[in-house]
Amino acid sequence: MSKPVVKVSFSPLLYPIYKEDECIVVVVDILRATTAMCTALYHGIEYIIPVATVEEALEYKNKPNYIIAAERNGEVVGGFEIGNSPFSYMDKSMKGKKLVLTTTNGTKSIKIAGDAQKVIAGSFANFSILTKYLKSRNEKVMILCAGWKDRFNLEDTLFAGALVDELIRGGFQYDLDSDAAIASRSIFLYSNGDFDNFLKDSSHRKRLSKLNLEKDIQYCLSLDTCPVIPMLIDGKLIDIAKDLRVNAGSIA
Amino acid sequence: MSKPVVKVSFSPLLYPIYKEDECIVVVVDILRATTAMCTALYHGIEYIIPVATVEEALEYKNKPNYIIAAERNGEVVGGFEIGNSPFSYMDKSMKGKKLVLTTTNGTKSIKIAGDAQKVIAGSFANFSILTKYLKSRNEKVMILCAGWKDRFNLEDTLFAGALVDELIRGGFQYDLDSDAAIASRSIFLYSNGDFDNFLKDSSHRKRLSKLNLEKDIQYCLSLDTCPVIPMLIDGKLIDIAKDLRVNAGSIA
Repeated sequence: MSKPVVKVSFSPLLYPIYKEDECIVVVVDILRATTAMCTALYHGIEYIIPVATVEEALEYKNKPNYIIAAERNGEVVGGFEIGNSPFSYMDKSMKGKKLVLTTTNGTKSIKIAGDAQKVIAGSFANFSILTKYLKSRNEKVMILCAGWKDRFNLEDTLFAGALVDELIRGGFQYDLDSDAAIASRSIFLYSNGDFDNFLKDSSHRKRLSKLNLEKDIQYCLSLDTCPVIPMLIDGKLIDIAKDLRVNAGSIA
Repeated sequence: MSKPVVKVSFSPLLYPIYKEDECIVVVVDILRATTAMCTALYHGIEYIIPVATVEEALEYKNKPNYIIAAERNGEVVGGFEIGNSPFSYMDKSMKGKKLVLTTTNGTKSIKIAGDAQKVIAGSFANFSILTKYLKSRNEKVMILCAGWKDRFNLEDTLFAGALVDELIRGGFQYDLDSDAAIASRSIFLYSNGDFDNFLKDSSHRKRLSKLNLEKDIQYCLSLDTCPVIPMLIDGKLIDIAKDLRVNAGSIA
């Protein structure tokens, strides 16, 4: 059996160049969309409908059992009560509800990757369970960094590098298109596991610090707080680990 | 006087997002376009006209004192005698000639950056003199990695990181858009100066190795072989260090 390949796209704008439908796309928006998604599913949200625009999210307003949430430029959109702070999704009142979410970068990237065989939301919050799942498959993995308005960003790259490192150690390989994977891994190794210190100059951290979101940042950089695997199925992010946990042997 | 800023764009496709006209753009295509440009000017080519297409290059065919060169996908284009191997430009017969050059990535990036205040070709071949020149100005610097067909690539990023490192040590700073600059610098520092080893898995190196271009690669990774500053002036790359060398105090 040939070794599976791991690749990285640093921006949704670059994704069409690297795109392959026959692969698992891991969409990453560490600060904060994919971390919030993992948190929501772990704390009892039934599923998440990621939508690209605020208007689409508003279509679900007042529908029973739906929660709508919208973030733009790091802040909750006017008219919404919730944005993408992971702490918003820990409230018991949300259990069993369906979440409709739009964010500046993360939900857009999930939509862009929609044609791929599998699309999964990745974050430090679900790092270990995600890694185990990917290693258990023999499929090509594409890590899509959501970035910031199509720009390269550091925290998504750091996550990509951590994941590449695990996969390469687990038998994955680089191919001709893997320069971004090698670069991410180098950045992760250079950080020496001290994400907090490494990211002190990063642009989005500065942006969120101005909004007093240091507590969110610390949470988003914490490992394995939410062991879920949010997979896009028929337009909904569903935690497939719920079933897998029942039959734990298959991924653990 | 406020500190000047250094930024990096990892791909010509991302450049419009980062673009600012009031800055010095350093275009980088280590393997091999910008290295070849430095080599050509250092070995006596009067100036270089970078053109985007093979057709444009052919318009200069048979014009007295012009040499035309074209590379695509690492190879000399059919009908041309020269591509972008730096060694092609060391021949004494080229002295005083004008070079019209088109390459897969490098000349395209120079054209894209054409609106900027200043555009300079950078490579390891002119690393120290370029660094000194940039430090002597108080202008924003944007490093544009030519990449490979809009993809991120490792060797251009390694160069960008080496240059960012020098500039930051020399008093430049990061701004909100500098995640790519921080990442490049981390990759450079992680490489520990051993470019050859670091790049062993890089995609373009593999591509060129297949074409038996290992000698070219070694040359392209060598420091300060050609102390020139190729600046785009009226569509021509001219070595401004020729004059500056006369008045060496201003950049040395």
